[in-house]
Amino acid sequence: MNNYVEIICVGNELLIGKTLNTNSQWLGKRITTLGLTTHRITVVGDDVNEISCAIIEAIRRKSRFIISTGGLGPTFDDKTLEGIAKALKRKILLNQEALKMIKDKYFEYSQDGKKEPVELTPHRIKMAMLPQGSKPIPNSVGTAPAVIIEHNNLIIIALPGVPSEMKSIFEKSVTSLLKPFSEGTSFFEISINSTRVMESEIAPIIDKVMKSVPSVYIKSHPKGTESSPQIELHLSTYGKDADKAKDHLNKAVQQLTKLIKENLKKSDLQNQKID
Amino acid sequence: MNNYVEIICVGNELLIGKTLNTNSQWLGKRITTLGLTTHRITVVGDDVNEISCAIIEAIRRKSRFIISTGGLGPTFDDKTLEGIAKALKRKILLNQEALKMIKDKYFEYSQDGKKEPVELTPHRIKMAMLPQGSKPIPNSVGTAPAVIIEHNNLIIIALPGVPSEMKSIFEKSVTSLLKPFSEGTSFFEISINSTRVMESEIAPIIDKVMKSVPSVYIKSHPKGTESSPQIELHLSTYGKDADKAKDHLNKAVQQLTKLIKENLKKSDLQNQKID
Repeated sequence: MNNYVEIICVGNELLIGKTLNTNSQWLGKRITTLGLTTHRITVVGDDVNEISCAIIEAIRRKSRFIISTGGLGPTFDDKTLEGIAKALKRKILLNQEALKMIKDKYFEYSQDGKKEPVELTPHRIKMAMLPQGSKPIPNSVGTAPAVIIEHNNLIIIALPGVPSEMKSIFEKSVTSLLKPFSEGTSFFEISINSTRVMESEIAPIIDKVMKSVPSVYIKSHPKGTESSPQIELHLSTYGKDADKAKDHLNKAVQQLTKLIKENLKKSDLQNQKID
Repeated sequence: MNNYVEIICVGNELLIGKTLNTNSQWLGKRITTLGLTTHRITVVGDDVNEISCAIIEAIRRKSRFIISTGGLGPTFDDKTLEGIAKALKRKILLNQEALKMIKDKYFEYSQDGKKEPVELTPHRIKMAMLPQGSKPIPNSVGTAPAVIIEHNNLIIIALPGVPSEMKSIFEKSVTSLLKPFSEGTSFFEISINSTRVMESEIAPIIDKVMKSVPSVYIKSHPKGTESSPQIELHLSTYGKDADKAKDHLNKAVQQLTKLIKENLKKSDLQNQKID
């Protein structure tokens, strides 16, 4: 079963660099931890055509899930649902379940401040205008409901862009939806740090260890420079059997450490010869 | 002239949420400040097909520039140039100019530490294997050269993923390449903060002001909640005439402030009636 997830983040503020996209990092980490694979992250602006194109492209790549963030609020440029509707060729309709969620929210707000009941203006009703066949998901932190839409084999989950709302809805309503698609697979990782050895010297060592323990993926993250190297080596694997997965990681760590140490000894010897 | 830029960030670490994508934010901000428009940001893993697909898709969307980050180093999973070559149907060849840059770097490193001359291993030579017709750009902070490739009307700029290297090359060699495409246009922005008024109340106010000053784009960024609102209103515009652009921004700020104050007075009056 394909367990590919694509993340689509909507917002001009992400494109102009006003806002750091912490949402996609948080989602990427959670999706991986749940045992699924984030295949791509796409950021587009607040534009119906752009959103629609991004959705159509993700459908063509045969994702199992598309998780979007942003563009569900009451302002003119909250256009995610319109973009999804366009991509799926569905109508936008007033969803009574979503409208009730929004009504209840505003009633709650007026009780809080003991103010006059808050009127359901067109901008507030807009948050209940969903693509045909949508299921609204309650937003306990904010106002705009999140939305789930099934389309053939694909599930689109539209989450708000405010991080606290996005995270709360993900944990309460999305985790349980994604988890079965991992089919019991989990993600395992470990990092080790190496100094004094250049990334270009570690490169052939990584090749060797990955050939010897092919289930483990090793990636080097240079933190220093090539001449004054500090390298984080990140080892990761997916697996259904935790003991086996950890065993493979340990085996790879041992081989890596051994080969790096041998490399250091060799170059120390060479330098001694020069001195 | 089309001045659209797409950013493509390559790296599994971005998809699994291990690394926060600060590169795309930094690039988005710089591109905007230079007067160009970032049209899309795409994040893909260290996979030749994924990189190639992302490039082909960006070409189809008729970008003027594609700026990629990551995947230029010496390890097996540094695959950006291979992905670009595949997308453009070009061969990967040893580039003598890039090879010289790399040779000089390793000579420099060996002088620094007074070590034995560093050997040009296959993993080091790999960093000089560029798509046919590439122009290498020196990397004064790190080792792997950046790469510029022209393809019909498109310019692809492949930058390293290490932020300090990426930023340094962008400022030294990319800024001057992009700037003429802004055709003298600059980006202007201002933010104002509003409390006590809900985002859903501000939404129709934004509509009004944007109708009155259509050159200014106004986006609300809720920082609090709908019941305890703290909203940043971000106003922005592109323009060739700085005075005119600032004038438009000021006009929009004045109208926004006036309408928000009126709204507050109205709701205060309503609440007094209840009390």
